[in-house]
Amino acid sequence: MPACRDDRRFTQGATTVIELRSDMLVELVDSMGDDTSVVRAAKVSTAGQGAAHYVQHEQAAPKLIGYLMRNRHGSPFEHTAFTFYVEAPIFVWREIMRHRIASYNEESARYRKLDPAFYVPARERDLVQSGSSAHPLLTPGSDYQHAHVETELRRGAVAAYDAYERLLSHGIAREVARMVLPVNIYSSAYVTMNARALMNFLSLRTSNLDAAYPSHPMREIEAVARQFEMIFAERMPATHAAFAENGRVAP
Amino acid sequence: MPACRDDRRFTQGATTVIELRSDMLVELVDSMGDDTSVVRAAKVSTAGQGAAHYVQHEQAAPKLIGYLMRNRHGSPFEHTAFTFYVEAPIFVWREIMRHRIASYNEESARYRKLDPAFYVPARERDLVQSGSSAHPLLTPGSDYQHAHVETELRRGAVAAYDAYERLLSHGIAREVARMVLPVNIYSSAYVTMNARALMNFLSLRTSNLDAAYPSHPMREIEAVARQFEMIFAERMPATHAAFAENGRVAP
Amino acid sequence: MPACRDDRRFTQGATTVIELRSDMLVELVDSMGDDTSVVRAAKVSTAGQGAAHYVQHEQAAPKLIGYLMRNRHGSPFEHTAFTFYVEAPIFVWREIMRHRIASYNEESARYRKLDPAFYVPARERDLVQSGSSAHPLLTPGSDYQHAHVETELRRGAVAAYDAYERLLSHGIAREVARMVLPVNIYSSAYVTMNARALMNFLSLRTSNLDAAYPSHPMREIEAVARQFEMIFAERMPATHAAFAENGRVAP
Amino acid sequence: MPACRDDRRFTQGATTVIELRSDMLVELVDSMGDDTSVVRAAKVSTAGQGAAHYVQHEQAAPKLIGYLMRNRHGSPFEHTAFTFYVEAPIFVWREIMRHRIASYNEESARYRKLDPAFYVPARERDLVQSGSSAHPLLTPGSDYQHAHVETELRRGAVAAYDAYERLLSHGIAREVARMVLPVNIYSSAYVTMNARALMNFLSLRTSNLDAAYPSHPMREIEAVARQFEMIFAERMPATHAAFAENGRVAP
Repeated sequence: MPACRDDRRFTQGATTVIELRSDMLVELVDSMGDDTSVVRAAKVSTAGQGAAHYVQHEQAAPKLIGYLMRNRHGSPFEHTAFTFYVEAPIFVWREIMRHRIASYNEESARYRKLDPAFYVPARERDLVQSGSSAHPLLTPGSDYQHAHVETELRRGAVAAYDAYERLLSHGIAREVARMVLPVNIYSSAYVTMNARALMNFLSLRTSNLDAAYPSHPMREIEAVARQFEMIFAERMPATHAAFAENGRVAP
Repeated sequence: MPACRDDRRFTQGATTVIELRSDMLVELVDSMGDDTSVVRAAKVSTAGQGAAHYVQHEQAAPKLIGYLMRNRHGSPFEHTAFTFYVEAPIFVWREIMRHRIASYNEESARYRKLDPAFYVPARERDLVQSGSSAHPLLTPGSDYQHAHVETELRRGAVAAYDAYERLLSHGIAREVARMVLPVNIYSSAYVTMNARALMNFLSLRTSNLDAAYPSHPMREIEAVARQFEMIFAERMPATHAAFAENGRVAP
Repeated sequence: MPACRDDRRFTQGATTVIELRSDMLVELVDSMGDDTSVVRAAKVSTAGQGAAHYVQHEQAAPKLIGYLMRNRHGSPFEHTAFTFYVEAPIFVWREIMRHRIASYNEESARYRKLDPAFYVPARERDLVQSGSSAHPLLTPGSDYQHAHVETELRRGAVAAYDAYERLLSHGIAREVARMVLPVNIYSSAYVTMNARALMNFLSLRTSNLDAAYPSHPMREIEAVARQFEMIFAERMPATHAAFAENGRVAP
Repeated sequence: MPACRDDRRFTQGATTVIELRSDMLVELVDSMGDDTSVVRAAKVSTAGQGAAHYVQHEQAAPKLIGYLMRNRHGSPFEHTAFTFYVEAPIFVWREIMRHRIASYNEESARYRKLDPAFYVPARERDLVQSGSSAHPLLTPGSDYQHAHVETELRRGAVAAYDAYERLLSHGIAREVARMVLPVNIYSSAYVTMNARALMNFLSLRTSNLDAAYPSHPMREIEAVARQFEMIFAERMPATHAAFAENGRVAP
């Protein structure tokens, strides 16, 4: 049985094409609001019904938004929303979904057969543990270590998906059969957050020298966060700039 | 000093124009999503990355949305957002803001002088207490009772706003001077909710014969809720229909 | 009709005793957990089922809790709860209830007649506005200004409560009659928060030189917060100390 | 290398003892409040400061609590808290943690090596898929199917844990090595919820003929929920009875 040409997609058994991926896929599906939404919501406190007029004067946004960020007035940032479609391995979803000020709908291994796509670290992903258990530091792996990791993950994925399909073919329910699948299998979901919750996510899930409170996120969730941040920065440039200039602490 | 012609706006003292209002003002400022957002989010559970395709087939929305509503699958309704601008008296805001899955920014009596607009019940507002304390029932008031209520509220508003201005004119801080103002003074705010939270609001804040769990909202918050509902029904007709047909219980 | 001896409680009309108060009443009603709850929850990440054993070694708590606070690991602080009974004027409740990660049950002006207790600022309460509208500063009032404030608030309270009782005596429903009452009337409620939400409350509602992000709370809500903080510090001394030593930012 | 006598714990390789489990472990670690907490919080609406007195009259609790439940007055149930220690497989944790009105701290596969304990369905667990994809029904498996499932899960667990240990022994970081582990590996966490959130959990995660809105939970999360419910029923018998008698809908 010949493998696919791309060694990231190879045929397993008669028909199953196993896919190895190293990416986190993030797409913006829908959104509401921008920097002017923040200005409008903030101005209502001092201007009442006149707040809507301030939205015209967009040039004032950076100054006001900087003030809100510095003083941790967070509520004006909540009148916005971003819906993302995300594909990530289960061990990443487990971290993402710890963020409770957000909405999620994910594909269900009870209701559908999961696709055979599995995560393997890219070559640049640090692999080797150092530091203490409270402060794990990671350093680059050797070529041998990378090959070892990829081999184990590939072999594990193939064996697990094989077992999964055997169980399904014997009439075992999807929700039982999937118990054999590893946490690096991909899953997809819609994620909706407002800008305040999103900044909290970025604050905790990116590592950044400018951060007042350094975070040590897992590389894979950081790859999701970085894509969230690019979209966020494009949609709300003044808010993103103020976030970056004020220690990357969510207001 | 002659009063304004409209007896709902009359001059008090040298310059202050007191306004008596009976309305709740609701305007849609921004929104995200519609019925197809619900379909897309729901379909991801069974279709994974194929979920986006279902959005094309809008005719399927009512059936799927009805299924979600009946079975109380609430999360797909969260990938939506509505931002409203609302003007209402403080005693109404106090009820609105008990809804915690929502975002608020309100004008601040610490940061600005409140406008002299006060709520008085319209003629059709029930006024007379009957029933028990756990189940208060209200019945229409007589012409005399209505006149009495309006007189007391008008007199109270004038006296309170007079005192407010006297205190301000003596250099007393806004946040102290406002302590004399009554709870029927108007305030304005931006309110953002997703469709699931909005349905919970409607479920509790409207009185409806179709409701599986009857609510007895205060008339003034119901006037806000009815306007929310009209906007919601227009933006998400299939979701609203399913909500109405399934006992008006938020999923 | 002779007044009561205490000029803070005086008889109004035939029987009504109006009470003027300057305090915020806070009582701890119930609570769950202490510093060891934090240790236990944090230790599960590195010790799994062995986490419970760490609770024995209480002397380790301050170090671990300091680490969590500095690094903004907030979730271990959530396995605790405090239920307070609070009496405060309505304009203070309006600020308290903006805190959404909390549970509230308040007396209802729809279901009961409110008691005639009204807030007046104590002599030491700053009264005079200075600074800009975005940064209001308050400075002490003169004796005259204090007398003026008290006179207006007393007169307003008496007139409003008089009107309230007249309306009630004419059969007007409580929920309508109360519209005439000022925002400095007292109300009572039960408030439940976990330690993380409580620290967020303290961070925003106390003014403190040690704070990394200075807050400018209204004096009356700060009086509530200070009492919350004393109870919190007594129940969770290591957590409180770490909060105080790390810029009073909620983790 | 001889296996352990208990075929549920067997030695793998030189020293590793793999454990196969079919249980969900739930222990109550801490709690706050009971039925009287609900009464007290509810009574404040009609009794203000007198609410605390009603707690004495415990015999009134069932009637009031039934009224609150029927009318979906949910907030009085929030002044309570339950902290559970739970051991469950990762695919169950993924469902548990979708409940956002709750607090979690879980052992971390980044900070510790996971123990080799894996879930296998007990003999009575339904295994065979029937029904449609939207309404999956499960029916009992044959002896052969059960043996097949256990064989695959056992083989998968052994192979995956072997790979995990090989990766660790080559210096690969825990957070990378664990990617090979299957979703039926056990993890442990502390979970804190108030009674209202807990009833919502029970409503969605138990299957019950008395339920107004039938749920079809996965069997393994139901095993967690049933244990939560027993503890809840013991601590808050009037609340639990009212929940059961009113369609098992969270108020």
